Amino acid sequence: MKILEDKILAEGRILPGPVLKVSSFLNHQMDADLIMELGKELADRFRADGVTKILTIESSGIAIAVAVGAALHVPVLFAKKHRTSNVSGVLYQTLVHSYTHGTDYTVVVEREYLKADDRVLIIDDFLANGKAVEGLLDLSAQAGAAVVGAGIVIEKGFQDGGAQLRASGLRVESLAIVDSMDENGIVFRES
Amino acid sequence: MKILEDKILAEGRILPGPVLKVSSFLNHQMDADLIMELGKELADRFRADGVTKILTIESSGIAIAVAVGAALHVPVLFAKKHRTSNVSGVLYQTLVHSYTHGTDYTVVVEREYLKADDRVLIIDDFLANGKAVEGLLDLSAQAGAAVVGAGIVIEKGFQDGGAQLRASGLRVESLAIVDSMDENGIVFRES
Repeated sequence: MKILEDKILAEGRILPGPVLKVSSFLNHQMDADLIMELGKELADRFRADGVTKILTIESSGIAIAVAVGAALHVPVLFAKKHRTSNVSGVLYQTLVHSYTHGTDYTVVVEREYLKADDRVLIIDDFLANGKAVEGLLDLSAQAGAAVVGAGIVIEKGFQDGGAQLRASGLRVESLAIVDSMDENGIVFRES
Repeated sequence: MKILEDKILAEGRILPGPVLKVSSFLNHQMDADLIMELGKELADRFRADGVTKILTIESSGIAIAVAVGAALHVPVLFAKKHRTSNVSGVLYQTLVHSYTHGTDYTVVVEREYLKADDRVLIIDDFLANGKAVEGLLDLSAQAGAAVVGAGIVIEKGFQDGGAQLRASGLRVESLAIVDSMDENGIVFRES
């Protein structure tokens, strides 16, 4: 999506890792107008799929998820990071590995908000190793809900999360896919 | 705001504390259409104030803050909960006390996104003891930014945060103020 790629080129910074720092418009400071526009685009890509629920993970997925939910007029559920793994029977829980922090953390959703008759669209700001999406797939599977796909703002195409998820049969739509980023700049995958 | 009060009466549950559980539409599952409408109403109340930045705190303030930012066409900055209080000079940091969890936690924003010429509108989903708003006021003060006011979805009027903030001179706009909630039901303050 050209406006997103242009914004990444204008404001993104490459940090060691490599990390693509886009905290001027996506995941710390947020360009609300742009996020609403990105949400509409993701909504359009899944408009024919009978989505009944948007599922994301706190915190940086919430803004784009609400934008998609507003465009599709469906509720948005965000999985919460939980302090302990000792949670009650009213919750579905799963473990997500964070490469950034080198730790595992538990995320939960309340069972009453995710049901077997839901058609779930997973939304997140970034896709790299795919661990967050896998966690949201697991929560959906526990509920018996169908997942119609995953909508992502920026995919790091040089990490294998997107490829693995697509190989598993999941439909993954990413608004920008970064195939490489280094001292020579950022190269996007042709859409 | 009547549609909000009606939604609270229809779906809110009173838990010991007392806690007003509105996780079916505001802070776990989110009614995206309603949140966009609430955001427009808060935006309208501050439209004449020259707001240049929305400031909120993760996680449950993000959705309503983005809705306000989209209606005012200004960027949204969310303060992040930080693991340690040992943060670098590129951050402003402050300590927020959580009555819910009985602990203090550090929140941070990157200095480059909050400037002395900003006119800040603080947005949050709940106002009870006012500690989160106080933390956001402190971050704004560190940056030398002016705060035009605070916009809140639900204020617990029987706790003293709102009264103290207003007594300090801050303009606080709450879309619903709960003056009491118990086995007899929920009583809203007349607007």
